[in-house]
Amino acid sequence: MAFDADHREAPVSTEVLDQLFVEARTRNGWTDRPVPEALIRQLYDTMKFGPTSANSSPARFVFVTSAEAKARLAPHMSEGNRDKTMQAPVNVIIGFDTEFHDQLPKLFPHAPDARDWFAEPNARREAAFRNGSLQGAYMLIAARALGLDAGPMSGFDVEGVKQEFFAGTSVEPNFIMSLGYGSDENLFPRSPRLTFDEAAQIL
Amino acid sequence: MAFDADHREAPVSTEVLDQLFVEARTRNGWTDRPVPEALIRQLYDTMKFGPTSANSSPARFVFVTSAEAKARLAPHMSEGNRDKTMQAPVNVIIGFDTEFHDQLPKLFPHAPDARDWFAEPNARREAAFRNGSLQGAYMLIAARALGLDAGPMSGFDVEGVKQEFFAGTSVEPNFIMSLGYGSDENLFPRSPRLTFDEAAQIL
Repeated sequence: MAFDADHREAPVSTEVLDQLFVEARTRNGWTDRPVPEALIRQLYDTMKFGPTSANSSPARFVFVTSAEAKARLAPHMSEGNRDKTMQAPVNVIIGFDTEFHDQLPKLFPHAPDARDWFAEPNARREAAFRNGSLQGAYMLIAARALGLDAGPMSGFDVEGVKQEFFAGTSVEPNFIMSLGYGSDENLFPRSPRLTFDEAAQIL
Repeated sequence: MAFDADHREAPVSTEVLDQLFVEARTRNGWTDRPVPEALIRQLYDTMKFGPTSANSSPARFVFVTSAEAKARLAPHMSEGNRDKTMQAPVNVIIGFDTEFHDQLPKLFPHAPDARDWFAEPNARREAAFRNGSLQGAYMLIAARALGLDAGPMSGFDVEGVKQEFFAGTSVEPNFIMSLGYGSDENLFPRSPRLTFDEAAQIL
């Protein structure tokens, strides 16, 4: 019942809110339980429905799973992130395509001129970065919804990863996220968050 | 049971995946059912737990709910977004604080030098934009989890909104999202998504 108002208006359970947000933690250690390819594909087929400007869907994903691919990624991770990244069964490099507008005739068919809305390169890169970041967050929450743990990281050599994984393309790396079944190894205590009044106002 | 592996490994139900991602839609029309202030606060207190680099939490939120505040927002919305924005019970302006690093001694207490990691202004703005966008996506999914519909938009005058709502601060507007209980008015057919092989690869 896709558009059933009763369904839409129902909050999910406290247990689900805990799993997605309240109790979920960024993992720094990983068990050896593998992530099957079918689950990687289900993850994409779930998060792909998250909204983006004009359905532009600029994020691009490289799932690093093999020993060979991990060996290509390792030298570009920052020192503090390398060991835990290699321990995780999957590391997804989340990039954004700065030429995403070429896909708009397919992705936004009811507006034939949508490609032209993104003609200016600086504004287009900003749209790719914003919407690609939204999609990275959709993937993180979708991973938690599918029972996975996620470990997002910005600590890597962006230019090195670009040359190693996206050479000759219009894709730029945004962030890297480990996926798997986390252990409590090296888990920090939960850090404090800003209060509502520190981060928000109601007008 | 915060770190109970059995709990973590359990996928949520198909109904929840549908509500958060698969069947959820960006609304262009809104019913007059209000959004209570308690729900706005619950929304923040849910999404605030989403991960950001060094727990930097750069997003800042202005919930526009009163007729007076809406009148300040309306002139800055693009023509195509204005009417639906005014119809929604809540519009949240999602910004990011480019001086977020000043909060790090409080937000990341176990690394006393974390503020210095973001000393360079261009890299700091990029981190604010990336992590603030992640937080915007966390809010969108958390809204759906709480039974709300969300309508994110980039079509507005960024400089105008900055001057009207963030003058004299280090906060820049990122995107605007309507919140409420959507109607099917002006609902587009679901647009196609990129296939796995168009957007992703497994190495």
